Formats: sequence, structure tokens, C-alpha cells
Amino acid sequence: MANIRIWLKYDGTDFHGYQIQKNGITVQELIEKAIEKITGAKTPVIGCSRTDAGVHAYMYAANFRSDTKIPDKKLPVALNTALPDTIRVYKAERVSDDFHATFSATEKTYEYTIDTNEIADPFLKRYAWHYNYFVDSKRMKEGARYLIGKHDFTAFMASGGQTKTTVRTVKNIEITEKDKVITIKITADGFLYNMVRIIAGTLVYCGAGKLTPEDVGRILESKDRKEGGITAPPEGLKLISVVYEE
Amino acid sequence: MANIRIWLKYDGTDFHGYQIQKNGITVQELIEKAIEKITGAKTPVIGCSRTDAGVHAYMYAANFRSDTKIPDKKLPVALNTALPDTIRVYKAERVSDDFHATFSATEKTYEYTIDTNEIADPFLKRYAWHYNYFVDSKRMKEGARYLIGKHDFTAFMASGGQTKTTVRTVKNIEITEKDKVITIKITADGFLYNMVRIIAGTLVYCGAGKLTPEDVGRILESKDRKEGGITAPPEGLKLISVVYEE
Repeated sequence: MANIRIWLKYDGTDFHGYQIQKNGITVQELIEKAIEKITGAKTPVIGCSRTDAGVHAYMYAANFRSDTKIPDKKLPVALNTALPDTIRVYKAERVSDDFHATFSATEKTYEYTIDTNEIADPFLKRYAWHYNYFVDSKRMKEGARYLIGKHDFTAFMASGGQTKTTVRTVKNIEITEKDKVITIKITADGFLYNMVRIIAGTLVYCGAGKLTPEDVGRILESKDRKEGGITAPPEGLKLISVVYEE
Repeated sequence: MANIRIWLKYDGTDFHGYQIQKNGITVQELIEKAIEKITGAKTPVIGCSRTDAGVHAYMYAANFRSDTKIPDKKLPVALNTALPDTIRVYKAERVSDDFHATFSATEKTYEYTIDTNEIADPFLKRYAWHYNYFVDSKRMKEGARYLIGKHDFTAFMASGGQTKTTVRTVKNIEITEKDKVITIKITADGFLYNMVRIIAGTLVYCGAGKLTPEDVGRILESKDRKEGGITAPPEGLKLISVVYEE
């Protein structure tokens, strides 16, 4: 059977996250149903990331095994007719048999958006955390510097994650601000469970003066989740790219 | 009683337009209820534009008469607590007694967005018209030139509008394109009913080769709605500014 990789995009607002669960409709479930509908075969799908309810994906990779005769070029359109319009498949391609959407990823980039305006923007409601306090993005940048590099990120991991090691390499954190809307763009070789949301919560607390930039370094070194800031809400989070070494 | 102007923003997806009607929840109705809730008095509100169901407002002006003792500075927050979070009031200010949100407007600017990508962007679903054909935005610009200036726009008016004159002055039309998403920004001293949506539909047909740029001029001169292009769907439309001479 061929190993097929698909690239997709989804607005996570109305879903209970990516991964199949009992209590709500998930992206994985809808994709598996769509594949079954067009190929006739029950097909488990492996996703590149376990995004939570409300989290979005601007570019998401998944793979599955299938002996479908539908050519790669026609697969996206076929799948899209069987999916709700908040999920769109852009591309399908055959990959080597050992490709695994989670484990083959060498780099991921997430964006986290915070609307710090006193009055929330209705157009950002689904896509940003409304945090109605003064946040100094320069101070956030100072705090973020402590996180760059290869570290044990236990202090920035929620319980419930399954991982062999808590060491990750954060390659870059870019913080930009426009009209009091702050965006944190973070690239790493991988992320622990809720890591971006905890980093976002911690850096926002740093920018708001509840933590010093040095505290961010201290929290990292503590390896203790209790030392960190809050887990920022899901709606501000968006997976924007996944890189695979070919 | 004071004449109070408010500035607001709303995501129109879930509303049956601005103006009160029997068959659905409207922005006007919700604002009037919010004012009644905080002032105790039934208060009719005058809006700057009769936006249709699904149309958005990035900046919208309205006025009402009230003897409320709530200071202007506190009015937005008070109103927002009584409104759904898809409508936000940003500013309230006393204006001269003869101010009228519709008739005192000297200029309005609308933006219309078209997603011409083969596969629709889930994040633009609520905010753009997905038109899955090749559209040449240069050709749209050529067609748009015929509309600039003072003209009788009868051919670009839907029935059902109430207006003394069908003459309007279009001051500017700016067409931009990025990643196959085309935006038409149009400024005029006023607009007829559905005028922006009919202009958008006609210019898109021009860009798609169904009409020539010269046809756009011919349609304008015909003063006949039947000659024009389709009325583009509401979700792509957004009021972005209203100007008043003070």
C-alpha cells in the first residue's frame, strides 16, 4: 500500500482538536471518514501534531496508507468534497514507506497571537487571546532570549504528554507588534504538550510586568511546571509550518 | 437630550444585517436593546449604512438621543457588557443636534475581498467570496476606471433602495492582489443599495473575461441593472470607514 502524505489547513474553532476523542468532533475523525468515503476502506491517519480544541493549523501534514487508484492530483478535491469547509486539503503526495507525520518532522513553527487592545477586536475573537493589560513586547523579547537553544523544557510542559525526552531545541522566537496586537512566532525541532501556550502565557506575564525577563530563565532552569506562567488559551495558537527532511 | 454618536465594529456573519427586521437578529436591534438596558429608556438608533446579512463593519457610526448620565468615556464599556462579543463599541461622543449618521456622512469606504484560489482558504470563509476561476486583476483595474467620477449608478443599484438621486461620485477604486486574494477598495460620497456588491460582481466578471473593460463603461451608461454583472455575495464586503464633515 502506498504511504500518502496530505497537506491541509483548518480553522479549529468548531473542533475538539485534532486527535480523535469520544466527546466531540475532531479533525482526525473527519479526515478518516472522508478517506473512507472516497476509497471505501477504513484508514487510520497519522497527524503531525496533537492540536487542542480551538487551535488552528495554517499548514498541517498527515499521512495514511492506502491502495486507492485516485491520482495524487485529484485526491485533494475528492477529499474536500467529503470534508466541512473549515478543513481544506491542498496537496497529496506519495512518500517513502518509513515516513511518519509525527516522527519524521525535523522542525515546526507555531504562531501565537495576543490582542492587548482594551476593547477586543471582533475579527480576532476566534484567532487571538484577548489580554486587556499593557504588555511591553520589548520586555517579552528579553524574556524570550532565555528560551533559545537546546534545553530541558519540563517547566513548559503540561501533564498528559507522551514523550521520551523533555529536551527540545528552540531555534528562533520572533515577537512582533502592530496596533497592540502581539505575535509570537516560535520555531523548534519539536514541542512538548502545550509548550507554545505555556511559553506564550509566561512571556505575556513577563511583558505585563508580573515576571522579570530573568524570571523566564529561572523558570526554565527550575524544570518545574508550577513555576511558569499560565497556559495561554487555545484560540491564539496556529501551527504555521512543518518541515521534513527528504 | 444629547445627540450621541458611537463608533463600532462588527463581524456580520451571524447577523441578519444592520437594520431591524422580523426574521432574524440584527445589529441595530442588539444596540437598541443594549442602550435600553444601560439607560432604562427605549432608544431608536440611526446607523450610517444599511449593511446586509453577512456583511461586516470594521468601523461603523451610529447616533441616538439620550439623557443618560453615563459619561461618554464609560459608555463603550457599559454597552459592550450588554452586547455579544461579535459587536464592539469603541468610542462615544456628543455631537451637534443636527448630526444624522446616514445623512451627515460625506464619504464612505468599503472593501470587497475575493479569494480566487482553487481551494478556498478556511480562514477567509467568513470574509471573502470564493470565486474559483482565473481573474486578471489588471483587467479589473481597466474596467474600474470607467466608474471613477460623478455618474448615474442606476445600473449598479439593486431594487429596494430608497434614494432621491441615483447619482454618486466614486472618488477612488483601488484593486490589490496578494496570493490570489483580490481586494477592491472603493471610496465614494455615498452608495446606492448593493452598489459595492454589484460593482464587485461586475469587475470580477471583467477580470475573468466574461466582460471587457469597455463593457463596464457600457453598463454604466445603460443605466439598466439587467446589463450589469452579478451581485457578489455579502461575506466579502466590509465597511471600513465613514467620514463626517465636522
